[in-house]
Amino acid sequence: MSATPFDSRLYGALLSDAEIASLLDDAAQLRAMLEVEAALAEAEGACGVIPQPAARTIAQVAQALTVDPDDLAEATARDGIPVSGLVAALRRAVGGEAASFVHWGATTQDVMDTGLVLRLRAILDILDGRLDRLCGRLAERAGAERDTVMAARTRGQQATPTTLGLKMAGWRAPLQRHRQRLKDLRPRLERLSFGGASGTLAALGDKALAVEAALAARLDLAVPPLPWHSQRDGLAELAGWLALVTGSLGKIAGDVRLLSHNEIGELREGSGGGSSTMPQKANPVRSEAVLALARLNAGLAGQMHLTVLHDQERDGAAWQQEWLLLPQMLLACGAALTHTNAVIEDLQVDAARMRANLEAANGLVLAEAASFALSRHMPREEAQALVKQACKEVAAGGRHLMDVLAEASDAPVDWSALKDPANYTGMSAELIERALKDED
Amino acid sequence: MSATPFDSRLYGALLSDAEIASLLDDAAQLRAMLEVEAALAEAEGACGVIPQPAARTIAQVAQALTVDPDDLAEATARDGIPVSGLVAALRRAVGGEAASFVHWGATTQDVMDTGLVLRLRAILDILDGRLDRLCGRLAERAGAERDTVMAARTRGQQATPTTLGLKMAGWRAPLQRHRQRLKDLRPRLERLSFGGASGTLAALGDKALAVEAALAARLDLAVPPLPWHSQRDGLAELAGWLALVTGSLGKIAGDVRLLSHNEIGELREGSGGGSSTMPQKANPVRSEAVLALARLNAGLAGQMHLTVLHDQERDGAAWQQEWLLLPQMLLACGAALTHTNAVIEDLQVDAARMRANLEAANGLVLAEAASFALSRHMPREEAQALVKQACKEVAAGGRHLMDVLAEASDAPVDWSALKDPANYTGMSAELIERALKDED
Amino acid sequence: MSATPFDSRLYGALLSDAEIASLLDDAAQLRAMLEVEAALAEAEGACGVIPQPAARTIAQVAQALTVDPDDLAEATARDGIPVSGLVAALRRAVGGEAASFVHWGATTQDVMDTGLVLRLRAILDILDGRLDRLCGRLAERAGAERDTVMAARTRGQQATPTTLGLKMAGWRAPLQRHRQRLKDLRPRLERLSFGGASGTLAALGDKALAVEAALAARLDLAVPPLPWHSQRDGLAELAGWLALVTGSLGKIAGDVRLLSHNEIGELREGSGGGSSTMPQKANPVRSEAVLALARLNAGLAGQMHLTVLHDQERDGAAWQQEWLLLPQMLLACGAALTHTNAVIEDLQVDAARMRANLEAANGLVLAEAASFALSRHMPREEAQALVKQACKEVAAGGRHLMDVLAEASDAPVDWSALKDPANYTGMSAELIERALKDED
Amino acid sequence: MSATPFDSRLYGALLSDAEIASLLDDAAQLRAMLEVEAALAEAEGACGVIPQPAARTIAQVAQALTVDPDDLAEATARDGIPVSGLVAALRRAVGGEAASFVHWGATTQDVMDTGLVLRLRAILDILDGRLDRLCGRLAERAGAERDTVMAARTRGQQATPTTLGLKMAGWRAPLQRHRQRLKDLRPRLERLSFGGASGTLAALGDKALAVEAALAARLDLAVPPLPWHSQRDGLAELAGWLALVTGSLGKIAGDVRLLSHNEIGELREGSGGGSSTMPQKANPVRSEAVLALARLNAGLAGQMHLTVLHDQERDGAAWQQEWLLLPQMLLACGAALTHTNAVIEDLQVDAARMRANLEAANGLVLAEAASFALSRHMPREEAQALVKQACKEVAAGGRHLMDVLAEASDAPVDWSALKDPANYTGMSAELIERALKDED
Repeated sequence: MSATPFDSRLYGALLSDAEIASLLDDAAQLRAMLEVEAALAEAEGACGVIPQPAARTIAQVAQALTVDPDDLAEATARDGIPVSGLVAALRRAVGGEAASFVHWGATTQDVMDTGLVLRLRAILDILDGRLDRLCGRLAERAGAERDTVMAARTRGQQATPTTLGLKMAGWRAPLQRHRQRLKDLRPRLERLSFGGASGTLAALGDKALAVEAALAARLDLAVPPLPWHSQRDGLAELAGWLALVTGSLGKIAGDVRLLSHNEIGELREGSGGGSSTMPQKANPVRSEAVLALARLNAGLAGQMHLTVLHDQERDGAAWQQEWLLLPQMLLACGAALTHTNAVIEDLQVDAARMRANLEAANGLVLAEAASFALSRHMPREEAQALVKQACKEVAAGGRHLMDVLAEASDAPVDWSALKDPANYTGMSAELIERALKDED
Repeated sequence: MSATPFDSRLYGALLSDAEIASLLDDAAQLRAMLEVEAALAEAEGACGVIPQPAARTIAQVAQALTVDPDDLAEATARDGIPVSGLVAALRRAVGGEAASFVHWGATTQDVMDTGLVLRLRAILDILDGRLDRLCGRLAERAGAERDTVMAARTRGQQATPTTLGLKMAGWRAPLQRHRQRLKDLRPRLERLSFGGASGTLAALGDKALAVEAALAARLDLAVPPLPWHSQRDGLAELAGWLALVTGSLGKIAGDVRLLSHNEIGELREGSGGGSSTMPQKANPVRSEAVLALARLNAGLAGQMHLTVLHDQERDGAAWQQEWLLLPQMLLACGAALTHTNAVIEDLQVDAARMRANLEAANGLVLAEAASFALSRHMPREEAQALVKQACKEVAAGGRHLMDVLAEASDAPVDWSALKDPANYTGMSAELIERALKDED
Repeated sequence: MSATPFDSRLYGALLSDAEIASLLDDAAQLRAMLEVEAALAEAEGACGVIPQPAARTIAQVAQALTVDPDDLAEATARDGIPVSGLVAALRRAVGGEAASFVHWGATTQDVMDTGLVLRLRAILDILDGRLDRLCGRLAERAGAERDTVMAARTRGQQATPTTLGLKMAGWRAPLQRHRQRLKDLRPRLERLSFGGASGTLAALGDKALAVEAALAARLDLAVPPLPWHSQRDGLAELAGWLALVTGSLGKIAGDVRLLSHNEIGELREGSGGGSSTMPQKANPVRSEAVLALARLNAGLAGQMHLTVLHDQERDGAAWQQEWLLLPQMLLACGAALTHTNAVIEDLQVDAARMRANLEAANGLVLAEAASFALSRHMPREEAQALVKQACKEVAAGGRHLMDVLAEASDAPVDWSALKDPANYTGMSAELIERALKDED
Repeated sequence: MSATPFDSRLYGALLSDAEIASLLDDAAQLRAMLEVEAALAEAEGACGVIPQPAARTIAQVAQALTVDPDDLAEATARDGIPVSGLVAALRRAVGGEAASFVHWGATTQDVMDTGLVLRLRAILDILDGRLDRLCGRLAERAGAERDTVMAARTRGQQATPTTLGLKMAGWRAPLQRHRQRLKDLRPRLERLSFGGASGTLAALGDKALAVEAALAARLDLAVPPLPWHSQRDGLAELAGWLALVTGSLGKIAGDVRLLSHNEIGELREGSGGGSSTMPQKANPVRSEAVLALARLNAGLAGQMHLTVLHDQERDGAAWQQEWLLLPQMLLACGAALTHTNAVIEDLQVDAARMRANLEAANGLVLAEAASFALSRHMPREEAQALVKQACKEVAAGGRHLMDVLAEASDAPVDWSALKDPANYTGMSAELIERALKDED
């Protein structure tokens, strides 16, 4: 099927992520669960809970086995989980006496959650790698555009001059923080899920904790203080992180999209996308996709927080909500990172247009500068009132703010130096330098 | 791919809907778009906008053409839309002079949105049919359980007696309203989308409105007062409706799930689902799935409302959000309806357990009845205080409330008649009858 | 307190709505509940359920009584509902034998929900009135700007010419539909809530349905087929409607905000808001507020849909969620309507700038027009390729598209007529006329 | 006003938090902003940016000044921000030449965001203190209930025995992690916001970074690598944390609410809340409120993630969204912590009922135990099939599972020892000990 964009061949390259999807699809899920069953058998064999030869057989068969998802569909619909069907298939494949020892003492959730964690580890490596590349690219471009003067825009209006370098350093700063957040959260997430039927490991007798340790070691996962069957904060925290990342990418995309409007024309997203009827179009396709994916992940993160309200020792409804939400969030984050990396790599900067846009306003963007220059010679409120009045004249007529002010005031201000926006970029260069050094 | 449950072969029968998916997948999308292109050509041929022979050729080729989604993937990613690639493919297939007249005067959004509406019409017929069946089943069961007395539970506590029939009539009442809501909204949704490049139909000259009418007639869709490229309230209203339906189904599922806890044991969802380690389990699998899907749709409806904030004449980001959200919502609604139909059909009722649960509380569930009986003989506040005190004694000891009250009060109350919960079901039967007659 | 903007004196005029707040605050809630208690007593007196003199006394006292919310705070926190405390206060005020008959046979939810519905009726009248005014204003302005040519912008880029009148008609169209939706939903919402302890009306014996009818008549509310204590679709539908309205207002606000960027400068939101440091600023304050409120309501609508998952016969948690969500949504909708009415009334249009922006692109916005003109003389794909190539030359150099094409092609096209965007607004005028006539 | 429960005197003690509200209300906001203005003046005086005497005057006046929110309401509505009005009021209060130097070089967002951070610091201290107390209480109670055997419930059905101690340790574990998460995030949040008009600090010339350092030192806040006017990840991360906390509290509340149903009756939330008509009621009022607040915060967290999509250098709409969302989230978290602390303190445990519920199922909850006991003597699948068949007999008749199995199998199993659930709690005690030691 391909009923959602995430699994669509048509939209996949726009709104999904093939590399991450290959870690989330039916085959990858079944593979990971079988790996957990294999490691469980080995751990139990090593601890003397099941016979060593059975353990070896199970591990070998589980590692080699391929199960067709279609064969498990009916059992999954009946049981609300795929593991009873999968265990039955594995038992059949193992055969003989060893079959008895498959899935010994574990419960479905142990196998599914641990299988998920193994795949999350791989996915987070991919996402972190893309974040790292993006930070690198942004650092490079921010450095290169350190002195590219442009209008800062606050609340939809030209505010004061700034630099494209500072804007880009601002895009990068939260991404660096996200990398640190990821470092903080991974130890809380990459943990073995192992509690048996309802979190007491009762079926394993007094060797339960030894098996737990051996299994964690085999899978290179941490042992949590308690089984986390019904304590889902680790996954909700991950969801929040995914939304933070896509949110910060969405901020970049929104900035790029706005600045590539024809009338602003300061940035352009590479060659852009075509229209089916308008030959002139070069649409900011990647930025649009990132915006859509960022908004999606914001909402889905809110929904993932609901799954923390997990009933008693296992809650089938809350758990299935996770299955519905988390894969899309991972795919959306992956796709948004890929697109943003491409946007930043190909981003076309029109520095002349930036300058022209600054100058088109006849100095209005330097009104703060003028008011501070005047404030050295008169009370600030008077200065502001004078500039405000001058701004109105500028807006009405076609003269430059500094010319109007030079006429209106006899304060000894160097009006001509004030005309150059490049003289009013403040600490831009210093801040860029500080931010690029900073690993936050 | 199968990275989300909606497109998974493993989870599809649990969390997705094959019938509706077949109207949403890549093939169905492309088919619907080609139908629109065919109808457009015919309409334009009939209006003399393009040559009749070209119109016929285009219509024939479009109706027969099958396009491999993989062939359009690259163009879709580049343009952010699949139609420029599809139109190119259709032109190649048409060939000759007629190729020029493919997609004449239309824009991508016309073709995609109208294609969507055509498929929504078919999907809504399916959903309405399932709703109708469910209402029928609920009416039947509510009638049959008209006199099955059970505890009403308010705020997690036994309240007063009620009947299962009244509960079931209550499950059905909003579904009837949803059917009416669907009737209300369909005329606002099942409308042609046709505006050309930016909603003025400029490319079609003075025959534009004639083409619009002819195209709508061919597709049996209404003509909206204005092209709705950037006015997306119809789709957001649909999303709200889908969430209303799944919400009402989720309410049923939550009731069933609670009442099938072992300690309550009044309802059971057919045979239930098995566990991978606990042989006694019969889990309420379908109700869990409905709950998960209902919560998902609630959140997604909120996200769909965001897409109404659509920029200017077309907003690629807001539009792509719709593509990410609406298919899942339709699938979730379809799956939830199928599951609930099965739950209601197979629902096992333990009337003896209902009675036993009522009686286990030693009359506490009749405390209101007792307080009203006493209120005929003393001020209501005194009566309530007396009953409240008696309730405490009942909770502490093991005696029946009416016995405690008979001892504590000399009011001439028929305490023995008050012991029977069946005497305190009020208007249950009358309300059921009224509700089942009502088409709301 | 004033810990949220909705109840803040500082932010109230920006983000809240005093008129609607006066129907939602503590005093208004208590007043409405007392009105319900009064009507209940009267209805029960008329039906012979309680003594007529007691009924009259209760009704008089309830209508005159003012209860200090502080006096009920403790009972409300203890019981999770304010009604047990309110009933006690009313009984004290009534005194004597009549006190016994206060709240006879009703439950808290009857009183709170019916009290809410009474206030919703008044609030919906207010909102509908504001919508009506806004539709009127938009109709007027759309008519006045019927021939004001401007660039349509699709996906963040100039697309083809359109008119401001058509854009305004597009803003208005969904608002008209919202008025119709409101008409559809009000009969499903403005219904008596009356079921007694758990929806069977058991405490009222065989006069229950007569009391229900009399109470509904007194309050001028409809009688629903069943008590709706646990069937909350009416409120969720209302939430969806509120979000639809704010969504459509947010679309207007977003359009205004974008078009008032300095570099575009086509619209201005009256005088705009000042900055604490930049004298030139005229920020689109109202549009920002509408956008913030619209996004809020979108998310809250999703949350309201969750409350439909209401447990058994009464669910305290789901019900309290409604209390947390619905008031904000009503206030947000009210504030957004007020702001948008003001924005449309004061909106300043710069038609010259619209024209200049169209012309600045040297004809690129007429690329579709050129391609259709050429398509009369050559295959459409060739025409599009030719125009696409010409667009690149225009973007690179400074010549007009039509001049480039006139040179590149010998097709007998009237290139000079094609230069005027006003000649390519298609059906704008006809569509405006049709839309303004349409009551949808 | 009191139009939302958060500012209601009626509902405040149920759904809001007076202590935290006092840090969020109009007065607290204005106070914090004035503190920032005071510190700014001092920092600028110390750095020689403004005259020292003016600095001292401003600081003194700002610290003493009380501004009536009503006086700023009009300016706030006009400008979309309260600071221009506040600065004007402060200038008036300062008077003379010093007035000129008020708010020197800062922008509104510097003052509001820094003021917010100062109050967040105080609020987070309160929340962390409550979390700490809750963890302490849970540790104590978990230790005390180490051997209280009860049924674990998975997917709504009795699963195997567990202990109340283990359940309580499970409630506590994520709270410990939340405390660590808070430690991780506070350094990313408790940072000075200081960038001037648009993030370049241009108005402060070459002393800008010295002022930044001095201001941060005075307020005891960290200096971020860059001004964070438009990089809002810190606040979104906080929102996620608030939702994580309320989510984990909601999980506790849901568990308590379910287990206090009459038919389960294992836990009781202190004395419970009364009904307006049913004298026997003891509703789980606090748990309901926590559930409502937890669901609210989950959804609002998703909305806060949207605010990270912040346009350009300042986005009035995204910023106002924060104002609408964050206060409610803080209040909801505060109220939920207070309620949960009370619930845990007052929680009444019915250990006999726990035992009775386990035994009522005639050993079904020990089916896994039986299947493992049999698996020592026969293949596991056979053992499971045998037990499954026996479970059916138990469900149908009234015999104990172990008796049925003893009859059905001649395996040398100690059936009588298997009857005691206390023998099948596995690692409960060890896990509790490990978890309580663990600081995660």
